[in-house]
Amino acid sequence: MQPARILALGSLLLSASSATAHADALRDQATAIFKPIPNQISELHGTAINADQVALGKQLFFEPRLSSSHVISCNSCHNIGSGGADNVPTSTGHAWQKGARNSPTVFNAVLNASQFWDGRAKDLEEQAKGPVQNPVEMHSTPQDVEQTLSSIPDYVSAFGKAFPNDKKPVSFDNMARAIQAFESTLITPDSRFDRYLKGDDQALDSEEKNGLQTFIAAGCVSCHNGVNLGGQAYFQFGVVQKPNNKVLPDADQGRFAITKTQSDKYVFRVAPLRNVALTAPYFHSGQVWDLKQAVAVMGTAQLGKQLDDGQTTAITAFLKTLTGTQPRVEYPLLPPSSEKTPRPKG
Amino acid sequence: MQPARILALGSLLLSASSATAHADALRDQATAIFKPIPNQISELHGTAINADQVALGKQLFFEPRLSSSHVISCNSCHNIGSGGADNVPTSTGHAWQKGARNSPTVFNAVLNASQFWDGRAKDLEEQAKGPVQNPVEMHSTPQDVEQTLSSIPDYVSAFGKAFPNDKKPVSFDNMARAIQAFESTLITPDSRFDRYLKGDDQALDSEEKNGLQTFIAAGCVSCHNGVNLGGQAYFQFGVVQKPNNKVLPDADQGRFAITKTQSDKYVFRVAPLRNVALTAPYFHSGQVWDLKQAVAVMGTAQLGKQLDDGQTTAITAFLKTLTGTQPRVEYPLLPPSSEKTPRPKG
Repeated sequence: MQPARILALGSLLLSASSATAHADALRDQATAIFKPIPNQISELHGTAINADQVALGKQLFFEPRLSSSHVISCNSCHNIGSGGADNVPTSTGHAWQKGARNSPTVFNAVLNASQFWDGRAKDLEEQAKGPVQNPVEMHSTPQDVEQTLSSIPDYVSAFGKAFPNDKKPVSFDNMARAIQAFESTLITPDSRFDRYLKGDDQALDSEEKNGLQTFIAAGCVSCHNGVNLGGQAYFQFGVVQKPNNKVLPDADQGRFAITKTQSDKYVFRVAPLRNVALTAPYFHSGQVWDLKQAVAVMGTAQLGKQLDDGQTTAITAFLKTLTGTQPRVEYPLLPPSSEKTPRPKG
Repeated sequence: MQPARILALGSLLLSASSATAHADALRDQATAIFKPIPNQISELHGTAINADQVALGKQLFFEPRLSSSHVISCNSCHNIGSGGADNVPTSTGHAWQKGARNSPTVFNAVLNASQFWDGRAKDLEEQAKGPVQNPVEMHSTPQDVEQTLSSIPDYVSAFGKAFPNDKKPVSFDNMARAIQAFESTLITPDSRFDRYLKGDDQALDSEEKNGLQTFIAAGCVSCHNGVNLGGQAYFQFGVVQKPNNKVLPDADQGRFAITKTQSDKYVFRVAPLRNVALTAPYFHSGQVWDLKQAVAVMGTAQLGKQLDDGQTTAITAFLKTLTGTQPRVEYPLLPPSSEKTPRPKG
């Protein structure tokens, strides 16, 4: 081999090895900040979830008789087919009333530290009781729910099977527990980003890696980290610069309504970013439809940075790699009412 | 063997053989009047349905973006989990408006001679276009539907695959064709009654057979016959005696609105009775919740007969044997909108 050729080969090897080192450095950074979604529910919970509770919870998740109208179910606003959300600014509930905030996805929600935009429910069990009773959502009461479920023989036996040690298996609390069990199965493993985290260098292209690098370097990861890239902590929306009144309406003061603490004004739970490409429109107000625009809003509002077009484009490309394998759910059969079942109201 | 014993055995055999003859006679009558639901869709259609159209049609059936609000889908009122209907008197549609008539089940609807309570659609393709455009149901237009579906890349390719010979695969007509293809798969074979028709004498108990006998003898079968026990012909509701104004409201004159023929006043398509135990409340008005009461109403209104309690109880027991194997449907993944997708309205 000619000396010149040897030199050229040497430089090529050096460059390749430096590229590898660079790639490894990015993954090292990423794995320190993020975690993949577990492939198996049991990995997540350490133990198998009670299959009878999951089966019952699936029926209840699709059960319109949990609403006073018998028209609205959990799935109405947390649609299993569309990323676990409903793709409208704020949900439509009882009597066509609009909810106050955008419906958060139910997928991977079990991995969040708390539930709702303001974190007012500590877990999915507590969360599940909210919309059922909310007058602008399902507009029911624990009493009505218990009366309804107790009147349906197949539910009585399903609750008995799912909660065999309870004196009163059919209860509002157990409804919420069963829904939590089902929702805990709604995780979306094996996104391209997770495959990258686990060592598959080809899972992301260079634009997406560039986006990941920018997402880290710009500081997005101060809030959007962990397994769900969010969902763990609380921050003020507009900590550096308040977004406009449409995106951050004055009237909704976020966590302040729960804690009554001044410093919680306009504080929200950090939005988890898994499957974010499927869950437009964005923010608690649901007023931004375009993911790239949402990234730009975050740049100015939270980081005080005017991200340039290349940066928002790259970050958006990265965020699209967070779409995991969507849960495949067989539509449950809902047991028929009996003559004792309360009739729909309104 | 003692002569007395021989005599007793002979009479037992005679009585058994007369019971068998009686049982065979009932089945002979029944098989002349009714037909079982086919076990396979291909038996029904003579040929396999286009699988790409079925897959697309399933997505469209669950697609809330076919409604102007992006909230209402076919499944909202023809719920796959509850007998293909919605178990409310009349459906709730756009802006919480109530439809005029009870939502008929989509299950086995492909076997009906026409669609809607007044038979105004000749088939499921024509039917599917109705609710999408109805201002009190999904409140959309063919133009909006085509614009929406054309803006979603995954739908564009799915329509192309399902309708490969069309110049313009994404069309309102093809939406309806795909929905029809999916709905054609929603049949419920293997009810206990069908097993009986096919020769399984144990599939019905004596009360249910008594109900079948009464259903035939009382004359219910003049209208409720064939594979769907109805769905083939038109008759006046209240042909002998008009039911009360709640069950048969004056304002809804049935088929008269379509044909403008005097003799079509209060004429409706005979309700198909498959899975009737799952689809309360009953009649086009949805005003009768109890199946036994519905049977009694039919007796006076259509037959001019005051059926006694034993008869209505037996017929009701028979009707409950018409519940077939419900379709198991995996919830489809709905492709995400693009920036060109029209936003939900209202």
